[in-house]
Amino acid sequence: MGNEVVLLDFDLSMFCIRVKIALAEKGVEFEDKEEDLVNTKSALLLQMNPVYKKVPVLIHNGKPISESLIIVEYIDEIWRDKAPLLPSDPYQRAQARLWADFVDNKVHEVSKRIWTGRVGEHEAEKRELVENLKQLEEALGDKPYFGGDTFGFVDVALIPFYRWFSTYEKIGNFKLGCQKLIAWANRCLEKESVSKYLSDEKDVYEFVVSYRKKIGVD
Amino acid sequence: MGNEVVLLDFDLSMFCIRVKIALAEKGVEFEDKEEDLVNTKSALLLQMNPVYKKVPVLIHNGKPISESLIIVEYIDEIWRDKAPLLPSDPYQRAQARLWADFVDNKVHEVSKRIWTGRVGEHEAEKRELVENLKQLEEALGDKPYFGGDTFGFVDVALIPFYRWFSTYEKIGNFKLGCQKLIAWANRCLEKESVSKYLSDEKDVYEFVVSYRKKIGVD
Repeated sequence: MGNEVVLLDFDLSMFCIRVKIALAEKGVEFEDKEEDLVNTKSALLLQMNPVYKKVPVLIHNGKPISESLIIVEYIDEIWRDKAPLLPSDPYQRAQARLWADFVDNKVHEVSKRIWTGRVGEHEAEKRELVENLKQLEEALGDKPYFGGDTFGFVDVALIPFYRWFSTYEKIGNFKLGCQKLIAWANRCLEKESVSKYLSDEKDVYEFVVSYRKKIGVD
Repeated sequence: MGNEVVLLDFDLSMFCIRVKIALAEKGVEFEDKEEDLVNTKSALLLQMNPVYKKVPVLIHNGKPISESLIIVEYIDEIWRDKAPLLPSDPYQRAQARLWADFVDNKVHEVSKRIWTGRVGEHEAEKRELVENLKQLEEALGDKPYFGGDTFGFVDVALIPFYRWFSTYEKIGNFKLGCQKLIAWANRCLEKESVSKYLSDEKDVYEFVVSYRKKIGVD
């Protein structure tokens, strides 16, 4: 089987960055097709992800897979010989899936309400986000990575959000704390797979500022 | 390794029913601990699921796993010799995860807004739910089950919602259509693992009516 890999991508998307990091960890070359989400979705995107119409979509030998965590798990299953992302033990796998899910359903959901909300609102969300990050720090414990001694599934799931932290703080006018996560993030950034694809903080902030103008909250 | 299996359960929860069906498919005996969610959460639940504080929690040899789809996948990985739920092919696995996720993020989210909403509101949600079920019917195609010839992961994920369909219709005063899904559900109900645990339509309706009174939308 050949391995023709195409990614429908949007550069600043944390979800797309997960996929790029996973592919880089596995050493898989891919064709990167940037979507112009601000203006119009491509015919290819609508054809390949008719259900959600969202990036990322990984097209592997012509067959599309969507939803970032599902894509990362697929990548881990297809290219299993190099850099395993999920642990082999079923209990540890379940825990990794749980924390990755927590990043989506807690960290992302709550932070999005902050950066798309009016200034001064969402005080409860700010407290919740600080609490969520504390829970992640407890889950990390004294390990170098969420995956233990090696970079794994939860690390891939969370690290793209790191470059949004300063934007959450600026827009929400609050502090996240989370020194332990920052140390973890810097450890992740020593990996080329991560440093190559993580967004620039300034780009994230500018994107959010212009998005907030567009939706009329600023 | 012994197999001490305890389920922190709430009888009417679609998410708990998924876990019970999966355990029944695998022929795993378990101790069922019903939680009194209406009044107070048990100390055991808070200890075993400190992050979400929600049922279902599967406690396997003392170790807790939460979030229903993660639990079902765990069950499938631990008891792999009988009644495999996820397909072995990575692409098919990804598709199964995608549709199970669709049940949670689309069918459940949208229908919940209907049954917890005021009568006459949520017209857009009703159209969306009908559309979501159509998309599921397309995904089912001409197969007897979402899993193909055998009952699988997506079947487990979706079937507990079937007994809520008539409540969605009554509360929302609309019709779901979805004859093909009804035929599929009746096929699933021929399995003892399903018929044993599926809720009674009347119990669901009474629960929803009393819940709506409690939250003040009726």
